[in-house]
Amino acid sequence: MGKKIATVITDMFEDVEYTDPAKAFQDAGHEVITIEKEKGTKVTGKNNEAEVNIDEGIDNVDPQDFDALFIPGGFSPDMLRADDRFVEFAKHFMDEKKPVVTLCHGPQLLITAKALEGRTATGFKSIRVDMEYAGADVKDEEVVVCQDQLVTSRRPDDLPAFKKEALNVLN
Amino acid sequence: MGKKIATVITDMFEDVEYTDPAKAFQDAGHEVITIEKEKGTKVTGKNNEAEVNIDEGIDNVDPQDFDALFIPGGFSPDMLRADDRFVEFAKHFMDEKKPVVTLCHGPQLLITAKALEGRTATGFKSIRVDMEYAGADVKDEEVVVCQDQLVTSRRPDDLPAFKKEALNVLN
Repeated sequence: MGKKIATVITDMFEDVEYTDPAKAFQDAGHEVITIEKEKGTKVTGKNNEAEVNIDEGIDNVDPQDFDALFIPGGFSPDMLRADDRFVEFAKHFMDEKKPVVTLCHGPQLLITAKALEGRTATGFKSIRVDMEYAGADVKDEEVVVCQDQLVTSRRPDDLPAFKKEALNVLN
Repeated sequence: MGKKIATVITDMFEDVEYTDPAKAFQDAGHEVITIEKEKGTKVTGKNNEAEVNIDEGIDNVDPQDFDALFIPGGFSPDMLRADDRFVEFAKHFMDEKKPVVTLCHGPQLLITAKALEGRTATGFKSIRVDMEYAGADVKDEEVVVCQDQLVTSRRPDDLPAFKKEALNVLN
């Protein structure tokens, strides 16, 4: 049965890190619900290759209503984590051990949620020292699956491996 | 006597966080030397308000030749820290207790250099949990001066206080 995947995203996301996994998740029968500050707006990727319609505003969603969390990379995660509502939202999925799939700079939101302590993960090179300090066991691997729940990758090159393992934990 | 201030900067810097302090430092008689990957290129701010000529390539500079380090914010520091050469360069100034003046996302470069342990500092809201994990005592104040050497601020609004304290440690 298809899962409801909350996708937190704002401007400056890494275009292909949203478009490619989102299509794969939808093709597999899952529902991708995009969440930003306000419903009905649009956000634009950092390479100006993708524009994404926002389905829900953060104040109008309850994380209990979603099965999984997807955080695309780029500069979007850093902008989202300046807003405590997105940090709290992400924390729910980690606390409840629901699937969390993210790559590149996405784990920044999990650091601010203090949700990487004791976890195994990877991320974009620039944030790996942050992740270590945040208590994660950080690997330099194309995809890392932690406790059959948290799936992380490093960069766009890793998308094939990322999608495969993300779909595994979603099923 | 004027100081030689190494300024590490790349695209997507927060425009005013370079232009405003750089002018203040030059007006006070200091020399601002911009450093990126290659000498003779130009980098552009995230708001497209400032374009900066690069004076020196990172492979052609020795941190011993500079008196101080300036790291403007924006997304520039995160891109720089993906390149180990900039991390090593920044580490020198912290190890040698030379003046380091930075704001907004600038402290990200110091986290990756593992140079914030035991220091008091501030930064943009989104990176404050990273800074805490990195061992800093993080304050929510317009400017923080640590050991008369490290000057940090949070955001463009703090520029007047930042410039004042940065000029103090440079003199």
